[in-house]
Amino acid sequence: MNRRMVFYTVGYVALAETALLLLPALVALIYLEKSGLTFLISAAISFAIGFTLIKCFRPKSKLIYAKEGFAIVAYTWLLMSAIGALPFRMSGQIPSYIDAFFETVSGFTTTGASILPDVEALDHCMLFWRSFTHWIGGMGIIVLVTAVLPNIADRSLNVLKAEMPGPTVGKLVPRSRDTAKILYWIYFGMTALLFVLLIVGGMPVFDSLLHALGTAGTGGFGIKADSLASYSPYLQWVITVFMFIFAINFNLYYLMLIRKFRAAFGSDEFWFFTALVLFCIAGITVNIIPLYPTFSEALRHSAFQAISIVSTSGFATTDFNLWPNFAKSLLLLLMVVGGCAGSTAGGFKAVRVVILLKSVRRELKKLLHPRSVKAVMSEGKRLDDTTLTGVTSYFAAYIFCIILIYILISFEPFDFETNFTATLTCFNNVGPGFGGVGPASNFSGYSDISTLILSFAMLLGRLEVFPLLLGLNPLIWKKSKSKTV
Amino acid sequence: MNRRMVFYTVGYVALAETALLLLPALVALIYLEKSGLTFLISAAISFAIGFTLIKCFRPKSKLIYAKEGFAIVAYTWLLMSAIGALPFRMSGQIPSYIDAFFETVSGFTTTGASILPDVEALDHCMLFWRSFTHWIGGMGIIVLVTAVLPNIADRSLNVLKAEMPGPTVGKLVPRSRDTAKILYWIYFGMTALLFVLLIVGGMPVFDSLLHALGTAGTGGFGIKADSLASYSPYLQWVITVFMFIFAINFNLYYLMLIRKFRAAFGSDEFWFFTALVLFCIAGITVNIIPLYPTFSEALRHSAFQAISIVSTSGFATTDFNLWPNFAKSLLLLLMVVGGCAGSTAGGFKAVRVVILLKSVRRELKKLLHPRSVKAVMSEGKRLDDTTLTGVTSYFAAYIFCIILIYILISFEPFDFETNFTATLTCFNNVGPGFGGVGPASNFSGYSDISTLILSFAMLLGRLEVFPLLLGLNPLIWKKSKSKTV
Repeated sequence: MNRRMVFYTVGYVALAETALLLLPALVALIYLEKSGLTFLISAAISFAIGFTLIKCFRPKSKLIYAKEGFAIVAYTWLLMSAIGALPFRMSGQIPSYIDAFFETVSGFTTTGASILPDVEALDHCMLFWRSFTHWIGGMGIIVLVTAVLPNIADRSLNVLKAEMPGPTVGKLVPRSRDTAKILYWIYFGMTALLFVLLIVGGMPVFDSLLHALGTAGTGGFGIKADSLASYSPYLQWVITVFMFIFAINFNLYYLMLIRKFRAAFGSDEFWFFTALVLFCIAGITVNIIPLYPTFSEALRHSAFQAISIVSTSGFATTDFNLWPNFAKSLLLLLMVVGGCAGSTAGGFKAVRVVILLKSVRRELKKLLHPRSVKAVMSEGKRLDDTTLTGVTSYFAAYIFCIILIYILISFEPFDFETNFTATLTCFNNVGPGFGGVGPASNFSGYSDISTLILSFAMLLGRLEVFPLLLGLNPLIWKKSKSKTV
Repeated sequence: MNRRMVFYTVGYVALAETALLLLPALVALIYLEKSGLTFLISAAISFAIGFTLIKCFRPKSKLIYAKEGFAIVAYTWLLMSAIGALPFRMSGQIPSYIDAFFETVSGFTTTGASILPDVEALDHCMLFWRSFTHWIGGMGIIVLVTAVLPNIADRSLNVLKAEMPGPTVGKLVPRSRDTAKILYWIYFGMTALLFVLLIVGGMPVFDSLLHALGTAGTGGFGIKADSLASYSPYLQWVITVFMFIFAINFNLYYLMLIRKFRAAFGSDEFWFFTALVLFCIAGITVNIIPLYPTFSEALRHSAFQAISIVSTSGFATTDFNLWPNFAKSLLLLLMVVGGCAGSTAGGFKAVRVVILLKSVRRELKKLLHPRSVKAVMSEGKRLDDTTLTGVTSYFAAYIFCIILIYILISFEPFDFETNFTATLTCFNNVGPGFGGVGPASNFSGYSDISTLILSFAMLLGRLEVFPLLLGLNPLIWKKSKSKTV
């Protein structure tokens, strides 16, 4: 284990966070908010930590293997959240540090679940920081660091792998750093486009910026008590479309940019995801028509909520907790499936569902014709065994995590719907659930210990379980070179 | 596809059911109940169907391949339930045929979920038939037919495979028929022992017989409104122990009979299952102590309910729906895990959980040391790929089924807890759920269409999804010899 390199890289991330914390301070300057000072203090703390780590742990070798990658990602995300929570606590806008930590983890993991009973009471700089954490966490801070800084590590793909969602990590171009840069340019460009479209629709500039950041990261922190309900249908539709866009594998946009249209739209995952979303929108619309005056309003709310949930954003234009069971059951399905791999969305990921469905189909065929076993194909290629067992093991770990988290928070006195969907919505990085954690409610009712458990659940979900578990496992720090750990 | 052989075998099963239907008629004779006539009529119908099938479809070849096995099992279970429901409907004791069908499926699949608002109003012969269906379904009617009748099929293992739960079917002895006989003798012997122990404890003979049958099949139909709450602690403990015994792989008892004790207790599954059950009993006991006057009462209720749920029996000694969340969450875990493979219990099966946990552990190791991939071991043997992908595909299918069934019954106006646990409890063949389908309630509130869906869910769970889906798939009837179906 290359310990020095782990701390050294985490130090660089702390420096990056220092820079990021200056932006909300700037916002505070514009709105003349005193609470902006807390961002400067936090930036100073972040700088001190980063500087110390870099000075003390200058590595002899910059090589990063798998386990260093996991450790870097695990500690980075914990440190980032711990520092990012400081301004909320120091300003007193979130009185409890644990609550502030939950809110920040919820931001970075692009969950959007909030413990705030009254979001509108927050200062502008605080609101900006919340939404900005979505944007940073959406693509991943290590991706950002890799893109912006000169090569700090050899084999940095091992870190990217641990941070980026999905069963396989495709590098777009040979060098990790260039891949990261391309991804961030696409991300930045689409966020800017959304920002402009919102302003064109008459949304105030501040609101437009924050919603653009929150939508791009598929985060879902709203800045109004009723999330997006009070904005015009045009604005709601724009956000609907962009939530969908940000839930698609970014490879598609890269392939479109280099004019490989056939390859761009040749993805199984894309078509499965689109078909599932359209099916659920249709089902929900039919189910909720009686609740709304016109068909177009029912369709708008159905499309918005369905895409908000499947993209794991979590914005709302209506209180879907009041919808009938069938509509809610489809939302639950979308909550679990989540977006496409290689997007900013969370959840189990559509591509994994496709692979599992194919493996079930293969099993059925094999039971009938035991001697004609065929390979599972995915995205036009024969799926190798490593990826296939990776997907099935992840699926098992995913379900085990849900059960375990649910049992751990079941000491809370809330009803089954509340506790169970709180587990699902945090672990899948969605945001709102049903019942007591529905879109019109918040997570402030949970005890400190459950708040910490749910914070950990969000990190587990965002980092897809294994990197976090391995990175935090003290056993990987052992110097032993045994291959049978 | 050997169609003739499929119908021919189903015909034999109908003849077997004819014989089985005479037993409740005998009970009616003892208690002088007129409703007993309906069993004679049903037996006549069953005989007519069986006789016709055997006469009309005398097969040229008695060979059974995998697909014939699936079709036989699927049609057998449907026909058995359809005929078995007739006495309930004809006697008017269950006025709706769909409800009677649900009750019979619930019996044969050893679920124990009931649509009866007042079970004590039933005649003795009806109560006997309900519990007797548990006993028949527990070990499997095809196993029974194989054991009792002369060899009706070649390669009958293909039928046993489709009916017997668990990822692999181990034949105890070379011939399927002998295996089936040994299993039934063990089953019969243990049921008889339980019967005697209950009588010794002062339970009336009729009650003892029915509870022995229901416990052996891990079924759970009670004959009192409060299930087993009104019986003595001794009787409750005896049933607790026997529910555990019947949830263990029967191989263990066979190995003990032939004095291979080391092999008998060398099973990973057995130890995992025992440890899980003890852990949950301890957790529940601590959680419910405040609800009961003494520790020993809390322990008794905890042990009874935990083992009743994990063995997928579903008897109750107290209304566990009123327990605190944590105790209920552990029951939910046990409900999903279920018993051991090769037992009469349902659920996902402990051995599969063990295999999945091992595959997750292997994945974690592989991520750290990509070049040192190790095989997953199960029950002391290297797990072959066919079994491993079989388990992971079954897991995927299992979760997909839960989601799909839940969505289908979500048109019902009940709360999330009721609909979701109704899905889990039917699909896992447990019996009671929480909320509106808790142990003090029943399934009579569900509409006809949902009653049918839940009936199908019970069959899906009992036959472990694939055999039923493949057996009912019209495509397998095609004569095509193509290997790429």
